[in-house]
Amino acid sequence: MFESAELGNEVDKATYEKEVPALRAALLETQQRVLDAAKFPVILVIAGVDAAGKGETVNVLNEWMDPRHIHNHAYGKRSDDEKARPPMWRFWRDLVPRGQIGVYFGAWYDHPLMARLGGDMDDDAHERHLADIVAFEKLLTDEGALVAKYWFHLSKQQQRKRLDELSAKKRTAWRVTDVEWEHHRAYGKFRRIAEKTLRETSRNQAMWNVVEGYDERWRTLTVGRSLLAAMTAHLHALAPAGGKTKAAPAQEAPVVETSAGDGKRIVSSIDLSKTLDKKAYERELEDWEGQLNLLLRAKKRLRRRSVLAVFEGSDAAGKGGSIRRITHALDARQYQVVPIAAPTEEERAQPYLWRFWRHLPGHGRMTIFDRSWYGRVLVERVEGFCAPAGWMRAYSEINDFEEHVTRHGGIVVKFWLQISREEQLRRFKAREETAFKRYKFGPDDWRNRKKWDAYEAAMTDMVDRTSTEIAPWNLVPAEDKHYARIEVLKTLVRRIEEAI
Amino acid sequence: MFESAELGNEVDKATYEKEVPALRAALLETQQRVLDAAKFPVILVIAGVDAAGKGETVNVLNEWMDPRHIHNHAYGKRSDDEKARPPMWRFWRDLVPRGQIGVYFGAWYDHPLMARLGGDMDDDAHERHLADIVAFEKLLTDEGALVAKYWFHLSKQQQRKRLDELSAKKRTAWRVTDVEWEHHRAYGKFRRIAEKTLRETSRNQAMWNVVEGYDERWRTLTVGRSLLAAMTAHLHALAPAGGKTKAAPAQEAPVVETSAGDGKRIVSSIDLSKTLDKKAYERELEDWEGQLNLLLRAKKRLRRRSVLAVFEGSDAAGKGGSIRRITHALDARQYQVVPIAAPTEEERAQPYLWRFWRHLPGHGRMTIFDRSWYGRVLVERVEGFCAPAGWMRAYSEINDFEEHVTRHGGIVVKFWLQISREEQLRRFKAREETAFKRYKFGPDDWRNRKKWDAYEAAMTDMVDRTSTEIAPWNLVPAEDKHYARIEVLKTLVRRIEEAI
Repeated sequence: MFESAELGNEVDKATYEKEVPALRAALLETQQRVLDAAKFPVILVIAGVDAAGKGETVNVLNEWMDPRHIHNHAYGKRSDDEKARPPMWRFWRDLVPRGQIGVYFGAWYDHPLMARLGGDMDDDAHERHLADIVAFEKLLTDEGALVAKYWFHLSKQQQRKRLDELSAKKRTAWRVTDVEWEHHRAYGKFRRIAEKTLRETSRNQAMWNVVEGYDERWRTLTVGRSLLAAMTAHLHALAPAGGKTKAAPAQEAPVVETSAGDGKRIVSSIDLSKTLDKKAYERELEDWEGQLNLLLRAKKRLRRRSVLAVFEGSDAAGKGGSIRRITHALDARQYQVVPIAAPTEEERAQPYLWRFWRHLPGHGRMTIFDRSWYGRVLVERVEGFCAPAGWMRAYSEINDFEEHVTRHGGIVVKFWLQISREEQLRRFKAREETAFKRYKFGPDDWRNRKKWDAYEAAMTDMVDRTSTEIAPWNLVPAEDKHYARIEVLKTLVRRIEEAI
Repeated sequence: MFESAELGNEVDKATYEKEVPALRAALLETQQRVLDAAKFPVILVIAGVDAAGKGETVNVLNEWMDPRHIHNHAYGKRSDDEKARPPMWRFWRDLVPRGQIGVYFGAWYDHPLMARLGGDMDDDAHERHLADIVAFEKLLTDEGALVAKYWFHLSKQQQRKRLDELSAKKRTAWRVTDVEWEHHRAYGKFRRIAEKTLRETSRNQAMWNVVEGYDERWRTLTVGRSLLAAMTAHLHALAPAGGKTKAAPAQEAPVVETSAGDGKRIVSSIDLSKTLDKKAYERELEDWEGQLNLLLRAKKRLRRRSVLAVFEGSDAAGKGGSIRRITHALDARQYQVVPIAAPTEEERAQPYLWRFWRHLPGHGRMTIFDRSWYGRVLVERVEGFCAPAGWMRAYSEINDFEEHVTRHGGIVVKFWLQISREEQLRRFKAREETAFKRYKFGPDDWRNRKKWDAYEAAMTDMVDRTSTEIAPWNLVPAEDKHYARIEVLKTLVRRIEEAI
């Protein structure tokens, strides 16, 4: 969830100053259009870790737009009046009318987050609370509201630096109290709860946008642009309706993509220079294959567990080779390899997740997916086989699916194999030249190559939206095949060991 | 929830035999159209109490339609294969492809019902489970499926009779085992869990239809007609799309009304002949007003509680008079009367529930709503102020709202005041003649009167969909004002006493 927001994104001063005037003008003008139309309210949810610049960013938005039509709401302890009513009452009271922008700090997310962190809410109660939130936001979007949610993120290191900086300056020292340091110490736990919160409440009508909060210019530009895009899309979705005050149906809600835009992409964090020489490779291969073999023979420890290994990556990234190194270590009765190509006639007549549910391994067994359910948000998205509403919806469907699987003993290990464009070209050419490899290669591959950028954006969103605590993505540098294969085996062994 | 299904609906043999040939032909033809279009599967969920004719009804459907394209699935204990995988696996495996009809007995509802009944699942876990079901069905309908859910209901008495009948006949005695009798003994608990299940999983994309199961002809006709209407509407919704295989967006899902159709209506169960003579009235009035007064002074007992009294009913049914008898008993600082007329400009700029959230009483206080949030599914539905998708959605939004309120100490007491058409006319005329009553009366009232039937259907759906254990409807015969006023006071006092 937080991958793209830990890349150290920043914007230099010159770029920022060049961009701001146009963005500012556009935001103000769009706010005016929202106001004139008076067809929907803008519900801006601002949450995230301490010291990530939430307040500062909202201040800038207030400065850039017309503050008379922006209503800022922050929430402290509940008043007596509020305690005498359901917890959602304070938020209902503060809802802004159509045409206006409401900013909600912490909003309806603060209480369940803090209660769960403090141990006052168990897992089931927390899930129930999150389901209530989903229903509430669905009601708002069903009535036409634009619900834009921004989560300001800092890595633990970044947070420490920010807190130190704030403490050091006289002007800002008051902002860092014991509470902030206490939260900092509980960072890991907070992150896990936040991750779950974002996962369960990112439904397509109201997706979360995670913003890296460390660099002031970056976060301001990111939120400003994203809000502009969201308001513009929402106005656009309403436009053709005309006549009666028809609320935008949730299914048609504007799709806000949240790839880093022109920021750093997750792929940039993958170090493609990693290599492993042949000798070391052969030694390690034997070692890790041995460990994997032992692990999967440990029947007792695997009695209530199963393994799903998922392989994604660009064409020619070496998925097949890595998979063979795994199966080589195993008894054929223990595993199944499921290659995912275009869906069959039978599969097309079913919801897209059906073919994967079908192939779920039983306890004690492993299924290796050579490409997977992520096709929906990769190839189907990029090639336009699936409408935007469909693949946007897929992120939460996939998260739900993986949660079902893990809740019942599944260990989901997801690999993304990354190579450079140049390396891909080399491998393509080699395949053309090698007769026995030619079957692996077709005109599709050349075509896909042209969409490199679109695939990279799709991969960024995929990792941001589906790398979760229960099923994180493992990003594997695959420029060197030896390195990649060992990395895959090692990660697989470790993840299984951790889980059982 | 079960109100319409306890009215003793039945169909005589002649009517049945006259209706069946056309219905049967239409079902078969529509099934063929669904098959030819191959655009969506029909997911038929069949659940309900024991001995309510689930199996028999499905047998008839299989007979009437082409059974080669109907797939019946019943579920027993999980097999070893199934135990090794997530609980939803068995249902995913059994999903029917587009164009086909799948019948699922008990479906994904059986396990949570039985686990909750047996005490193996606590309330939070149960709610979480129901939220999972909502997500699953949303996935299916988002992908275009028609999900039609039928709950076969019997009152406890009816169930006993059916079980006795089945036991008495040699041919059917085997069907009644200890399990059925055990369930019968736990009827009350089962009903409460069922009621909650239906309430939480009746989302507009997949509403429950409750069918009275006692009379074979009634239940067969009801399900047959409803299924026909649902398939026809779903085909129709798909029709204009054309071109690409576009799934029907959930918001546009066909609306299946579930009023009893030409069956008995709930109003018929209200005995309008009830009267109370003046002397008894005055005595009782004093008595109940006194009790209400004492009750609301009991500050300690009401410390964490509040009361919401809701009045609905046709025009001139005596809502105002009943309300005045309540307020007469109270201190003005304890209560607030909120008359609900057409929404103001400010209210129209908000979700329709906003104006009611605003007026929630704090602990220790009472709010009386003279008309209420039910306007959405009554006047707004009948007059067309709200699109069908909007008021269909409102049932679950209202149930959620009332759950929020009750969960935090609110006691919701809902009154429906019923008079006959003739009595309404008498009162209208009296108002026209009495100068000081004339302000209460306008051309709207004459107009509404013409829509008597439409209002009655809307009222039936309202009670069926929102009379819940936490906030049941109280249907009050109001032909005699004295009787109605005492009934209201009495019910209010008793409901508050029960709750605190």
